[in-house]
Amino acid sequence: MIQGIGAAAGVAIGKAFVLPNWEWSLPDTQVNPVDLAKEFERLYEGIRTSKDEIEFIKKEFREVVGPEESSIFDAHLAILDDPVFMSEIRGIIERQYKAAEVAVKEAIDHFVAMFDLLDDEYMKERAVDIKDVGNRLLKHLLGAPEVTLPSDTQPYILVAKELSPSQLAHLNPTYVLGIVTMMGGKTSHSSIMARALGIPLVAGLENNLSNPIQTGDMLVIDGDTGSVQIHPDEVTINEYVSLRNKQHKKKEQLELLATVEAVTKDGVNLRLAGNISSVKELNLALKYGAEGVGLFRTEFLYMDRSSFPTEDEQFEVYKQVVEKVGSNMVVIRSLDIGGDKHLDYFQLPEEQNPFLGYRAIRISLNRQDMFKTQLTAILRASAYGNVKLMFPMISSVEEVQAAKAVLEEVKAELELRGIPFNRNIPVGIMIEVPAAVMIADLLAEEVDFFSIGTNDLVQYVLAVDRMNEQIAHMYHPYHPAVLRMIRMTVEAARNAKIDISVCGEMAADERSLPLWLELGINDLSMSPQALLKVKHRTLNTLAIDATRVAKACFHHRTSSETEEILSAYAQKSGITLGTSVETKEKASS
Amino acid sequence: MIQGIGAAAGVAIGKAFVLPNWEWSLPDTQVNPVDLAKEFERLYEGIRTSKDEIEFIKKEFREVVGPEESSIFDAHLAILDDPVFMSEIRGIIERQYKAAEVAVKEAIDHFVAMFDLLDDEYMKERAVDIKDVGNRLLKHLLGAPEVTLPSDTQPYILVAKELSPSQLAHLNPTYVLGIVTMMGGKTSHSSIMARALGIPLVAGLENNLSNPIQTGDMLVIDGDTGSVQIHPDEVTINEYVSLRNKQHKKKEQLELLATVEAVTKDGVNLRLAGNISSVKELNLALKYGAEGVGLFRTEFLYMDRSSFPTEDEQFEVYKQVVEKVGSNMVVIRSLDIGGDKHLDYFQLPEEQNPFLGYRAIRISLNRQDMFKTQLTAILRASAYGNVKLMFPMISSVEEVQAAKAVLEEVKAELELRGIPFNRNIPVGIMIEVPAAVMIADLLAEEVDFFSIGTNDLVQYVLAVDRMNEQIAHMYHPYHPAVLRMIRMTVEAARNAKIDISVCGEMAADERSLPLWLELGINDLSMSPQALLKVKHRTLNTLAIDATRVAKACFHHRTSSETEEILSAYAQKSGITLGTSVETKEKASS
Repeated sequence: MIQGIGAAAGVAIGKAFVLPNWEWSLPDTQVNPVDLAKEFERLYEGIRTSKDEIEFIKKEFREVVGPEESSIFDAHLAILDDPVFMSEIRGIIERQYKAAEVAVKEAIDHFVAMFDLLDDEYMKERAVDIKDVGNRLLKHLLGAPEVTLPSDTQPYILVAKELSPSQLAHLNPTYVLGIVTMMGGKTSHSSIMARALGIPLVAGLENNLSNPIQTGDMLVIDGDTGSVQIHPDEVTINEYVSLRNKQHKKKEQLELLATVEAVTKDGVNLRLAGNISSVKELNLALKYGAEGVGLFRTEFLYMDRSSFPTEDEQFEVYKQVVEKVGSNMVVIRSLDIGGDKHLDYFQLPEEQNPFLGYRAIRISLNRQDMFKTQLTAILRASAYGNVKLMFPMISSVEEVQAAKAVLEEVKAELELRGIPFNRNIPVGIMIEVPAAVMIADLLAEEVDFFSIGTNDLVQYVLAVDRMNEQIAHMYHPYHPAVLRMIRMTVEAARNAKIDISVCGEMAADERSLPLWLELGINDLSMSPQALLKVKHRTLNTLAIDATRVAKACFHHRTSSETEEILSAYAQKSGITLGTSVETKEKASS
Repeated sequence: MIQGIGAAAGVAIGKAFVLPNWEWSLPDTQVNPVDLAKEFERLYEGIRTSKDEIEFIKKEFREVVGPEESSIFDAHLAILDDPVFMSEIRGIIERQYKAAEVAVKEAIDHFVAMFDLLDDEYMKERAVDIKDVGNRLLKHLLGAPEVTLPSDTQPYILVAKELSPSQLAHLNPTYVLGIVTMMGGKTSHSSIMARALGIPLVAGLENNLSNPIQTGDMLVIDGDTGSVQIHPDEVTINEYVSLRNKQHKKKEQLELLATVEAVTKDGVNLRLAGNISSVKELNLALKYGAEGVGLFRTEFLYMDRSSFPTEDEQFEVYKQVVEKVGSNMVVIRSLDIGGDKHLDYFQLPEEQNPFLGYRAIRISLNRQDMFKTQLTAILRASAYGNVKLMFPMISSVEEVQAAKAVLEEVKAELELRGIPFNRNIPVGIMIEVPAAVMIADLLAEEVDFFSIGTNDLVQYVLAVDRMNEQIAHMYHPYHPAVLRMIRMTVEAARNAKIDISVCGEMAADERSLPLWLELGINDLSMSPQALLKVKHRTLNTLAIDATRVAKACFHHRTSSETEEILSAYAQKSGITLGTSVETKEKASS
């Protein structure tokens, strides 16, 4: 048995397929100085092709795994625009008259060596990215074929030195039972992706492995404990087969909860809705028993296109979602681009701090043509079900009033056109900017409901960009400042007698359940993957107990006190299922 | 008389000097393909020299005008690293075999034409920046001399189509009475810089001017109203001479207030201290009557160097400041780098949102070697006067405790070394992250004082980066959320009986005075330039009146209500001096 790092949960049993390293031998050809321009053309052509290919993989990947993880490929695209990397390559061509592929190879080696030297987890990850992108570029320059995986007839456990996100993107999850990598750890891109795909993964085996694993070796891997057994005996295999079966059974049992009501042992009813960004995700949410949609992120309707979607195009999608959901509510959020979300056909200015920039409602109010088209489509869909409209990134009373004024204009136009819609469509706002919390009492007079977007709220309150690996450890949803802000928001909603829900990632973290029970929040919306887990926790919780625990949390001075107590409470009462890591990386608003 | 835009206040009377456009005729030479590499070398050499030169101007400029305005040059440096601009230049060289200077010229023309087409104020400014940087690069490629200004014997009013920041940086303010530009507006870089330098400027004359101004023309310009008179008659000149004299006199009268106590008409005493970043600025602050230093930004000790300053180097500066200040307090803030402030010798990671990133105390706690050196130097200086220590960007109780623990270690080491210091040095924190406001009661138990940094606080609370011109109009210090946060902080400080002051830009805005009086904040710290203006307001204010006005502000629903009322109140009582625009762009924390 060899010990690695358990990076994606689950047991896998099967034969190894060892992925050959993506390496080619390169002729050290010199370029005739007169042909330099041609060599540059080859390089640029290779870059273009590589970019197109990455865009394609990104799109495929987004459909399978979701929008958050696919952002990895943006990092890859950025490398192909990176001035330092690119000028290194160009420098080698134009000063040493080397062929483009040789220059690319040397530049990769140079950067990878440099980053590896730094002995820093983050930098090592960047090295993997550069290698991945560089190899793709090399592949195109050499006209080399992709590394082939075994034909999809026999499931296998994939073994590789390290796996790049683009390699993972090409895997067929049905045939990959599990993954073993020599390098990497819990936070590497491939681990994040394996968790999203539900494939067990053990990473970082390198230093503990005396003989390399060979294709065909029988393996048993446990992505929870990080153990890998090569040529295990019958007894071990049987042991793990039964463990695997138990895991599968637990998953199946969880799936049986889809049709069960979310109610605590002592009768407190919750409504668990889904956060979705497409009809595909809606189907998943409904499969897992979502009672409606608490957050429909419309921005993904605007992506992977060359122009803004028309009113009819949007209407068709909204209507489809509304009809599928039936009598339950569908909260449609108006476009939330900017920040880290961009559209190819809508140029946003370069921003120093895009999270503190031109985004969401700020863009909508500035681009009323686009905003009106969306509001019209949403209003039209409101004739077909229980639709609510929500504005993101609200930070002032004036903004809500301005957005509502546009809505009124659109309503008047629809009436003129004689098209049916719900004149009394409920209008709400995301509470995610600290200012909105501070003036929640004033905002509550303007709208029908609040939805707390904990992801952005935590980022702004703590001034911590959680995508920034250097300070991600400071991103604390259980920070006392965050809890106090949530309570302020709830109190303002209650005083104004308007609805309140939570749609950020905290809603998907089952440890938070006592907080919602204590605050009297019954509406939670989360990624489809989290629904059953939270429902399971709900069914195993005694509200009267949980609120007692939560009360204490509002008096803690530090995040860690609250996190410890809530984690311990979640462990204690009822069976815990899966790790919270999985949810953390999946959910988002 | 011609009407332009009054962009920097004041009257100027004198003869015009018309700046010739920075234009050169370029030979349309072709490059022999074998010499392409050489041409690239020339280009890179030109870029390097341009960068060095910009760095030099930036440094000079920072010393004269201050750190905030000099950030303009960072934008210039960034252009020379801009992959799109640079690849355009390279593309022209390598595909069309044109000489480097021709390629640079064509690339400039291309981008300027593109940006100008957009008819967007912000983009037009970017076009000016690109032209400026491109011309500098051209200058170096051509070996051309700088455009010469008249010899410094005769003061003049500078007339130019547009002025680039680097051109302005080379002006001698003693000889430039005023400036007239055909292009530009209030927010253009040259206007910001003219205001900082105190040179009257009228911009945007272009469309109203039938005949171009000639060198030697007699001019009268009024930077308040935006009027420009060419060949004015005797009567007009005399009129403006008397207006100018009145302005000068007002300024002199204001300077007389330096030694007067800051006390309202009804006897409320304020302590107005200075925000400084160098001994030079301290001298200015003391000249304008600062009662101590409320914020010593130590980061500028770390800039323009090739390595961290040693303990002794820092100690010498701190001691000098402390001794100059005498018995008044000096609040020294520990290093606040990151965000938009970087050090050449300390690599910070590329960040998507540096304001939400790795900065200030977050770096200090992570780099304890550096932090300890600074704390040691500060403690040593505490033996020489009334020194207080302040930590920036605090967002949790744990952070304060960690910083204090390091301080205790340093104290113990100093005791071992037998070096004198103040064992009871007061320790405080900046309140600038929303989380700190929300847990101000908990933080107050840990420290001796709070200082509210309104600049960052407003940015975080509203999620608005005020340097982002696209949304700068949303940066509202008078937003009800901000006022409520300030009040929460004051209440927490009062309950814990600790000191509280304001050191952000709001302190320098005399319109805020009623707020401080109502909240009972008597300690304000601001840029030296704002001291006399705020003192003048204080002397002309009846506190009992002002607090009544301020009370209403805390009930407003919008920023504009408060801003209007406070502006009107500031207009009504007492003479107003200068415009608030000037202060806005000068002060900072």
